[in-house]
Amino acid sequence: MRVSLDAPLNTIGEGSVISALWSRFPTPAEERPDDDCARFTPPAGFDLLTTVDMQVEDQDFLMEYFTPYDVGWKSAAMNLSDIGACGGTPEALYVALAMPAHRTVRDLISFADGVRDACEACAPGTVVRGGDMSDARRIIVSITATGLVPAGKTIGRSGAQPGDQVCYAGILGHSRAGVEAMLQHNIRHAPERALAAQMRPEPPVRLGAQAYDLGAHAMMDVSDGLAIDGARMARASGVTIDFDSAALAPRVAELGWVRHELGADPWEFVMAGGEDYGLLATFPEGALLPEAFDRVGTVLPAGEHAVLLAGEPSRYRGWDHYAPENGASHPGADTIG
Amino acid sequence: MRVSLDAPLNTIGEGSVISALWSRFPTPAEERPDDDCARFTPPAGFDLLTTVDMQVEDQDFLMEYFTPYDVGWKSAAMNLSDIGACGGTPEALYVALAMPAHRTVRDLISFADGVRDACEACAPGTVVRGGDMSDARRIIVSITATGLVPAGKTIGRSGAQPGDQVCYAGILGHSRAGVEAMLQHNIRHAPERALAAQMRPEPPVRLGAQAYDLGAHAMMDVSDGLAIDGARMARASGVTIDFDSAALAPRVAELGWVRHELGADPWEFVMAGGEDYGLLATFPEGALLPEAFDRVGTVLPAGEHAVLLAGEPSRYRGWDHYAPENGASHPGADTIG
Repeated sequence: MRVSLDAPLNTIGEGSVISALWSRFPTPAEERPDDDCARFTPPAGFDLLTTVDMQVEDQDFLMEYFTPYDVGWKSAAMNLSDIGACGGTPEALYVALAMPAHRTVRDLISFADGVRDACEACAPGTVVRGGDMSDARRIIVSITATGLVPAGKTIGRSGAQPGDQVCYAGILGHSRAGVEAMLQHNIRHAPERALAAQMRPEPPVRLGAQAYDLGAHAMMDVSDGLAIDGARMARASGVTIDFDSAALAPRVAELGWVRHELGADPWEFVMAGGEDYGLLATFPEGALLPEAFDRVGTVLPAGEHAVLLAGEPSRYRGWDHYAPENGASHPGADTIG
Repeated sequence: MRVSLDAPLNTIGEGSVISALWSRFPTPAEERPDDDCARFTPPAGFDLLTTVDMQVEDQDFLMEYFTPYDVGWKSAAMNLSDIGACGGTPEALYVALAMPAHRTVRDLISFADGVRDACEACAPGTVVRGGDMSDARRIIVSITATGLVPAGKTIGRSGAQPGDQVCYAGILGHSRAGVEAMLQHNIRHAPERALAAQMRPEPPVRLGAQAYDLGAHAMMDVSDGLAIDGARMARASGVTIDFDSAALAPRVAELGWVRHELGADPWEFVMAGGEDYGLLATFPEGALLPEAFDRVGTVLPAGEHAVLLAGEPSRYRGWDHYAPENGASHPGADTIG
């Protein structure tokens, strides 16, 4: 069937919509897009990891700035990040997409290519094995990612021990700077790096399994901000995490531009930015650190505060969807599983 | 923490929202709601089935009629249906939920109880192993369901053979009658059975595995209507399905009320209603049928039309999200995987 790239989805029929989407995804050869379920036989000796994240237009991304490609990329990347954060290797995505009927074939293909390219960039070999397509007034994406980890070799967030080195791999604060520039309608002076971090994050997925092999005690990805996610790790582990302000200072310096361009505090963005998708991990004192990890703090015995910054209580918080003080249109992310 | 059932979600904080939800779901004892991924080790000798479906307020359900309980029930049930339709036994759900911040704790608990009770009714033992919770302007639910099937014993939709008996287990047309009464704001004269079929469907999930054991050649659940889903099976199998009008007539008679109450054609609802969630299966000629299945047609060699009704081309179509003739606010469902 021949269609124009500019044809709205409601002129080509659901079968063609699904075919167009499916043809762009990295799909396994044996899978049909039209069966009720996808089938997979996990190899013996592996645990299956599963994570899900939903992204909603206006709530989690602004189509004034995002292309459908960016929406696909980001939705895929944030799920791949969770698999890596548990020490796993991503295996497949299941993509549920609602796209308004007036959107075009071009938009649909762009979305699919974003999913494909995020997999290629962050976790090559990951396939799209199934999904769901429907119509809605706004774009909504819910991706379920699965991954494999050698049986029993998963790293959780509850294993941090006093004395551990607290380490981080990835960027901090740039994504928040990018979204803040968008919300202030002031992207002209925002570095491309900040906008890319917000729209097309590249979580260091493969480092997760390496961190396990190098003896990490605890690990998680930082999606709501270093302070709040650090506090979650600290509480789950029954410890306090003391972040080292000198170690974080170069990251704050990189974001100096946000003071004059956005009227913002770069420390706030580094400590509580959100959507960083880097890996926070603790390693035994003295352990050699994987190359991409910086030491950013130390694990202390549990104290009054879950998180400290240079030994003092941190005033930086992270993102909470339902906190009374938060507005209802600010991007953010969290997971219950 | 003590909270009022009437407290809006944006007054209690995300941690409490997640705890409230998690405490009502049937969750496995070993799982923590706060890890990045859920972990599962599939037993040896089984294939894992996965399906996903997204439901959006206004698009797929009307909160004028649905309670949050109904939303939870229906979202769970339609996914469990897909697992059963492949001959599998549901194992777990992963629930991504966006609920507006003004919704209350009562709404949240009601949703969770609906998910739990649908599992209890349709597939006891199914657990909720993970999910995602966020804020949006409307309720959005995306559930991923997984199930287990003995390795290699999955039934697809492509195995129907000429001469097979075409059989159906479940109800037909009642769900469509229910939603039509809602759209016409005329539920006073709609039987409770029709409203319940629309809001709290009970797919015959366990019959799927039984059908496999009794030799079914092909199987799928009917979510978009008997005619369109029958045509999908026929095309996937390279056959024509001839539905038997005499066998379907009693089902049409049950829906006689829709003529005068809704100005609708009961044949249309039986043949192309949508959201029936029954099982369409084909069995070899002469095979004993599982008790809950009615014979409703015969498989013929492929002809000009994928589906016939009493030997004639059927004029009944089913639901297509992106068909030009469909409005944008009509409930329906389809899946790409």
